[in-house]
Amino acid sequence: MSRRTARISGPTKGERTRQRIVERAATLFNLRGTAGASMGDVTEASGLEKGGVYNHFASKDELVLEAFDYAAGLVLGRIDAAAARAARPLDRLLALLDVYREVAQNPPLPGGCPLLNAAIEADDGEKPALRARVRRAFAAWHKRIADAVDGAVAADELEPIDAEAFASTAIATLEGGVMLSRLFRDPQYIKAAVDHLHQWLGERARRLPA
Amino acid sequence: MSRRTARISGPTKGERTRQRIVERAATLFNLRGTAGASMGDVTEASGLEKGGVYNHFASKDELVLEAFDYAAGLVLGRIDAAAARAARPLDRLLALLDVYREVAQNPPLPGGCPLLNAAIEADDGEKPALRARVRRAFAAWHKRIADAVDGAVAADELEPIDAEAFASTAIATLEGGVMLSRLFRDPQYIKAAVDHLHQWLGERARRLPA
Repeated sequence: MSRRTARISGPTKGERTRQRIVERAATLFNLRGTAGASMGDVTEASGLEKGGVYNHFASKDELVLEAFDYAAGLVLGRIDAAAARAARPLDRLLALLDVYREVAQNPPLPGGCPLLNAAIEADDGEKPALRARVRRAFAAWHKRIADAVDGAVAADELEPIDAEAFASTAIATLEGGVMLSRLFRDPQYIKAAVDHLHQWLGERARRLPA
Repeated sequence: MSRRTARISGPTKGERTRQRIVERAATLFNLRGTAGASMGDVTEASGLEKGGVYNHFASKDELVLEAFDYAAGLVLGRIDAAAARAARPLDRLLALLDVYREVAQNPPLPGGCPLLNAAIEADDGEKPALRARVRRAFAAWHKRIADAVDGAVAADELEPIDAEAFASTAIATLEGGVMLSRLFRDPQYIKAAVDHLHQWLGERARRLPA
């Protein structure tokens, strides 16, 4: 009952502090990797007293997971917002690809795509809990693309194609494009990636996209 | 003159130790990132006394650069070996793509593609010297693909295509495929990436590849 009352009156000071820690940590981890940013760095970035982060998180591992979920939510939120603006299935599919141009050039957090960055850190098996979260985030994005392909095929806007294979190729191409554009500080790489996928779909489209 | 004598009689003990440090460091950095492996870790992995690495490298930054060049050399060596086995230009181009299936499943160093891993670490500008090396490695790979495209077009094996754009899309797709296959421990992602690029080229080929 007291818990419900707290909800009605908005987040408590403790909840706001906890959220600020998660946001600051997500940015630091995205910029430097989880190995490159210490709990001391997070404490400082959050404007807390020494050790203050430990009043809210039992361990760095716990904070790493929560910060990743927050960062992944920002990316998936962008993806869903882009898809929601398109009325027809093929346009929705194209919007799901186009949004990565934006992720490359103006990422939701400093440091580029948090899914890609965390995947590189977690792929060697030393961080199984983080890897499970990263897999889940990519699987959610993959499902959105595959569902959009199925929708466009069902609406007869697209020839029948292998939705699973296309979704995985699209994610690979876009994340690789983000990597190159960030490395070279040049948008031509993500542009080439998105244009390539557009062209490939255009050759299989049964109507011109909007 | 004494230097020449040393060369003729093979590497000195100091040179062999230095090389062992570079190899061990390259593996550690590829697995954990340069932020995730300390000079102490490298010393231990190299079987040296405490501080022994500093007899060979003035700083961690110096070792990071030399370890990256060593790792990039292994990748480019694989790429060049694959291309050298193909006699005709279009086959050479396809070989330059196929080799990444191997890089994903049996990387030249534990931890996956060292170009990709270092790119993610160096893209935020805090490590400009490493970033310059990573850019150079990707540029070398890009040139090999673009040259192979130009060769296949000149030999009338391929329709005229934008070699620069294809090379950058191919690298993006392959590195993204490596990332997903390593994250999910499943070769289907790199397979989908390579198959996609093969299909795209096949639709523009003027002869069947070997």
